Amino acid sequence: MITVLKGNATDQQRDNLIRWFESQGLRVHISKGEFQTVLGLVGDTSRIDEDLVAALDIVERVTRVTEKYKAANRKFHPEDTVISIGDVKIGGGNFAMIAGPCSVESEEQILGIAKSVRESGATLLRGGAFKPRTSPYDFQGMRAEGLELLLEAKQATGMPIVTEIMNAEHLPLFENVDVIQIGARNMQNFELLKAVGKTDKVILLKRGLANTLKELLMSAEYIMAEGNEKVILCERGIRTFETYTRNTLDLSAIPALRENTHLPIVIDPSHATGKASLVEPMALAAVAAGADGLMIEVHNDPQNALCDGAQSLTPEQFEKVAQKVRKIRDVVAS
Amino acid sequence: MITVLKGNATDQQRDNLIRWFESQGLRVHISKGEFQTVLGLVGDTSRIDEDLVAALDIVERVTRVTEKYKAANRKFHPEDTVISIGDVKIGGGNFAMIAGPCSVESEEQILGIAKSVRESGATLLRGGAFKPRTSPYDFQGMRAEGLELLLEAKQATGMPIVTEIMNAEHLPLFENVDVIQIGARNMQNFELLKAVGKTDKVILLKRGLANTLKELLMSAEYIMAEGNEKVILCERGIRTFETYTRNTLDLSAIPALRENTHLPIVIDPSHATGKASLVEPMALAAVAAGADGLMIEVHNDPQNALCDGAQSLTPEQFEKVAQKVRKIRDVVAS
Amino acid sequence: MITVLKGNATDQQRDNLIRWFESQGLRVHISKGEFQTVLGLVGDTSRIDEDLVAALDIVERVTRVTEKYKAANRKFHPEDTVISIGDVKIGGGNFAMIAGPCSVESEEQILGIAKSVRESGATLLRGGAFKPRTSPYDFQGMRAEGLELLLEAKQATGMPIVTEIMNAEHLPLFENVDVIQIGARNMQNFELLKAVGKTDKVILLKRGLANTLKELLMSAEYIMAEGNEKVILCERGIRTFETYTRNTLDLSAIPALRENTHLPIVIDPSHATGKASLVEPMALAAVAAGADGLMIEVHNDPQNALCDGAQSLTPEQFEKVAQKVRKIRDVVAS
Amino acid sequence: MITVLKGNATDQQRDNLIRWFESQGLRVHISKGEFQTVLGLVGDTSRIDEDLVAALDIVERVTRVTEKYKAANRKFHPEDTVISIGDVKIGGGNFAMIAGPCSVESEEQILGIAKSVRESGATLLRGGAFKPRTSPYDFQGMRAEGLELLLEAKQATGMPIVTEIMNAEHLPLFENVDVIQIGARNMQNFELLKAVGKTDKVILLKRGLANTLKELLMSAEYIMAEGNEKVILCERGIRTFETYTRNTLDLSAIPALRENTHLPIVIDPSHATGKASLVEPMALAAVAAGADGLMIEVHNDPQNALCDGAQSLTPEQFEKVAQKVRKIRDVVAS
Repeated sequence: MITVLKGNATDQQRDNLIRWFESQGLRVHISKGEFQTVLGLVGDTSRIDEDLVAALDIVERVTRVTEKYKAANRKFHPEDTVISIGDVKIGGGNFAMIAGPCSVESEEQILGIAKSVRESGATLLRGGAFKPRTSPYDFQGMRAEGLELLLEAKQATGMPIVTEIMNAEHLPLFENVDVIQIGARNMQNFELLKAVGKTDKVILLKRGLANTLKELLMSAEYIMAEGNEKVILCERGIRTFETYTRNTLDLSAIPALRENTHLPIVIDPSHATGKASLVEPMALAAVAAGADGLMIEVHNDPQNALCDGAQSLTPEQFEKVAQKVRKIRDVVAS
Repeated sequence: MITVLKGNATDQQRDNLIRWFESQGLRVHISKGEFQTVLGLVGDTSRIDEDLVAALDIVERVTRVTEKYKAANRKFHPEDTVISIGDVKIGGGNFAMIAGPCSVESEEQILGIAKSVRESGATLLRGGAFKPRTSPYDFQGMRAEGLELLLEAKQATGMPIVTEIMNAEHLPLFENVDVIQIGARNMQNFELLKAVGKTDKVILLKRGLANTLKELLMSAEYIMAEGNEKVILCERGIRTFETYTRNTLDLSAIPALRENTHLPIVIDPSHATGKASLVEPMALAAVAAGADGLMIEVHNDPQNALCDGAQSLTPEQFEKVAQKVRKIRDVVAS
Repeated sequence: MITVLKGNATDQQRDNLIRWFESQGLRVHISKGEFQTVLGLVGDTSRIDEDLVAALDIVERVTRVTEKYKAANRKFHPEDTVISIGDVKIGGGNFAMIAGPCSVESEEQILGIAKSVRESGATLLRGGAFKPRTSPYDFQGMRAEGLELLLEAKQATGMPIVTEIMNAEHLPLFENVDVIQIGARNMQNFELLKAVGKTDKVILLKRGLANTLKELLMSAEYIMAEGNEKVILCERGIRTFETYTRNTLDLSAIPALRENTHLPIVIDPSHATGKASLVEPMALAAVAAGADGLMIEVHNDPQNALCDGAQSLTPEQFEKVAQKVRKIRDVVAS
Repeated sequence: MITVLKGNATDQQRDNLIRWFESQGLRVHISKGEFQTVLGLVGDTSRIDEDLVAALDIVERVTRVTEKYKAANRKFHPEDTVISIGDVKIGGGNFAMIAGPCSVESEEQILGIAKSVRESGATLLRGGAFKPRTSPYDFQGMRAEGLELLLEAKQATGMPIVTEIMNAEHLPLFENVDVIQIGARNMQNFELLKAVGKTDKVILLKRGLANTLKELLMSAEYIMAEGNEKVILCERGIRTFETYTRNTLDLSAIPALRENTHLPIVIDPSHATGKASLVEPMALAAVAAGADGLMIEVHNDPQNALCDGAQSLTPEQFEKVAQKVRKIRDVVAS
């Protein structure tokens, strides 16, 4: 951490600050310039609150040199993490295709879609049982009953399942779930992060609508700091001023996260764009940019879906996307 | 709700859609233009998913005419809501001054600050016991112990207290808390909203960093739909591209919310700006714009605060702000 | 255009408004609902100011059904536009690879880079002579002299050239330039748009940092309304809260613009990300998403470049990207 | 400027970089830490391109300690600048009230409004002759003829006038204009900034929709670097995800700019909010936050205004706002 002092700081003020840093177990290198003095702090600065230091009267600015996230940091774990979910692997060159409906609606629906997407090459089945909705008057998911139908589809098809949790109290219901999803709106629900960090489930952590990549990694760190290192990161669009798409899909997150973390990275083009017509081009783009997986909404009857029908592909459309994805993978992986 | 059909929609497609709307209990007015046909829907459209309708092949666009929020809507409740918290009132011309430290740190600290801000005219005491922090390695609050110290300060000073909840499981600990705060990161933690909606506590609901005013009102509606109508809204800055301030304080939220809801509106200039030097001007601006209350961080020793010292005022600074606030109130209220 | 009246509008107010619309040459369809009345306007509404109508006391809201842009609109021009630049074609299945340095710095530099990128398959040469810089103290480009060197490189290599204009008074200097670029900061410099709209040059119009796709199309319309229909659109990143990348590259702009306009779409991954390490993945992603071209910064010596060295590829890196781009094109085009 | 080297930088690489810095006339202080080495650069770093340095393989990050703007910087000019416009002063405790219509529409209109706002206490008359409009089909202003009517109103009322320039070629027409406005869309039209920097007019520089405060100051610096130091800064709303208001008015810009510059700061609540009902509260808030002036749209007949009628006050509404503004000024100034 580097602390730049203001030009008008007195020697005594400076020495007081240096003594305080030293009392925190840090060594301090002093570099005196014409207009300012720079203090370089050496040691474990992860517990120093940089905003607090920056607020001191004599401090001009503070810059953190080492990131606060450790477990998720590629610097300390140079190799890609490969996560196994049943027979499916993701990360380190292994690609996962997650598909299924936004919401589980009935036994027939989820079984039908599951079989169809498996045939098209999907390796994991997604489906929402607990649904976060902006309005309390919108369909909130089939909840526990939906989970049961999802587990039935898992048994029928052999596909591991991915589904969202909204409340740590529901964890017992998720015992046979393979991948627990933390939704974008809960990315900084730190109590929930801690709770899933205490399980041994694979966690799919979605980036919040207004969260930086650094914050996404800090939230992954919350889970990992509890002992669960099986975290998959998911970019699903951020909120910007553009209104044509529901959110703006930030595909540069793929190489940017790749540089900074060893965790697998998945892209959800369905929620990001909110429009079925944009899902294929964004899915192919994500793969070309190096994503470790895709998460795509598929519905047998989008126009009668109880939730997010607007962005769902039909099984036929998904089949076509899956074929093109494999071709792009061949180019990128070669 | 208005549904505009595409020019190439066939008569049969149009009639199918009209029949579907009618099956949902709506009446449909048809207006045929040169390039498109417009369907006006009359009746209770609150359960119609507009994204779904917009996704239909024959639909050009959908516009909602009536808002989905009812309980929070000024249209249906023209009078300002006045909320009583002990002897303190907020809303409908009653102004509340909420002050205290970001975090409760010790008995001495919270008692000292409580007495000091009460003397300067604060009517409610704030203090964090459970703290949402971006990093798992940052101070997480004194938790249950902090709550106890806060209740002690309440008893010693007679001031009602405001403190944040992060987990519905903690609700029993909040039995004697007067105002339960839902933080910005939990504004769309719908499970938590439902849980506090089942209590009879006053709820202070902070706007999320990337949430629209409409979404804030929908989250208030989650609480109110469970039966708890004592909701105070709080603007605390939104996330933008500007980096000089921590967030961008959206003061136009005050008159904008005022037009749309009857609930009281409070401004938190401390978290919004993240800089003590900006708190006074933003506090005065909020009052001039018609806020029903302020929420200001005060710390006896900001430079040694365990959290957010950068934005805390000293008791002396707070005293000065409180005086000017009263003068601006006199002008605005007159 | 649809105008929704408030519930409390009197019949006389409504009739006055209808008469006013009719005086503007429009026919009005009335649809009376329980809570509101909806007026559907038929005819040429492009000159009606919707904000003005929305501001009327009796009006609840206004929705535009037909877009204001006509010449750029795919509805009226369903076929892709193909633009010829010398022997190079772009649009309608023709892909253009634009490469070169951010700034022209010397004869040796621009000639060297031009030959190198041509060998790697670039079809157009880019290079800045007039440079928009945030600070007046940063290098402002070689200006007229830079243009001459660029024209020299054109002659030496036979590559058409692309370069930015910042001032309509400089147009005479651009006589032999093939493609005139309007930079992001000038996307709404309407006087400049009109000026280039009066030329017969191909115009490459970059999206502004905070401009919607609709505004980009309106700016293209400014050029086309003056008679010049040879407009190429370029997405180069928008401004968001994320700070890891310089801007956030909005690749969904490709299919989104494709749906709405017939003009060719080019992506600039260099300016968008600001980091050389992110250029390759974003270039491949853009091609996978269906871009008609790429614009990539290449410099023989990025570390000594006078401008934007941080994001420039070396000729060797560019060669590698160009090869992969061709492979992805094969998949996408097939 | 501080340059942090990566842990794997060799001694030779480090020495090469140090030699290069020294060749640029800088002295280099070296501070060696456990994981990285920090170089502190002393001397005139304003010509060093920090992005370039940050892009070097061995560099972890670069932090600028001193700002690039000098003439606009409060550090070097601690006293508030007071600008005289005829008898009117602005800055350093002098408050300016700028009012008038968005567009000049006729002699009768501009004369009528001018007299009316002067009576209500406006000190400067605004009115647009050249209008930047998103659509080429919207009213573009009366242009030269509008300027003449504005000058007529100046003569009739004695009020100095403020009006926007969009093209440096029009400068001769602005000979008798008192304050030349640079609109938000032209904030980074650097050629136009340089052109008005060569005049001796007062320049009112509006912040761009997606520009940081630092960029606003750099644009002011463009004007000042040409010799014209009479620059007034104007905040008029920035673009965010919120759609209720046209833009989000960033009132924290007032104290934030105040800390960093000596130039006067004016707020335009009309364009920021786009809604007449929000103008009064935002105007009062701006004054409470310490603005040096307001710029408010007033129209005698908002519903028939040719441009931006939605946000215009009637003369009666303006009179009421002006009275309250004076009362808030009394509190703030005391």
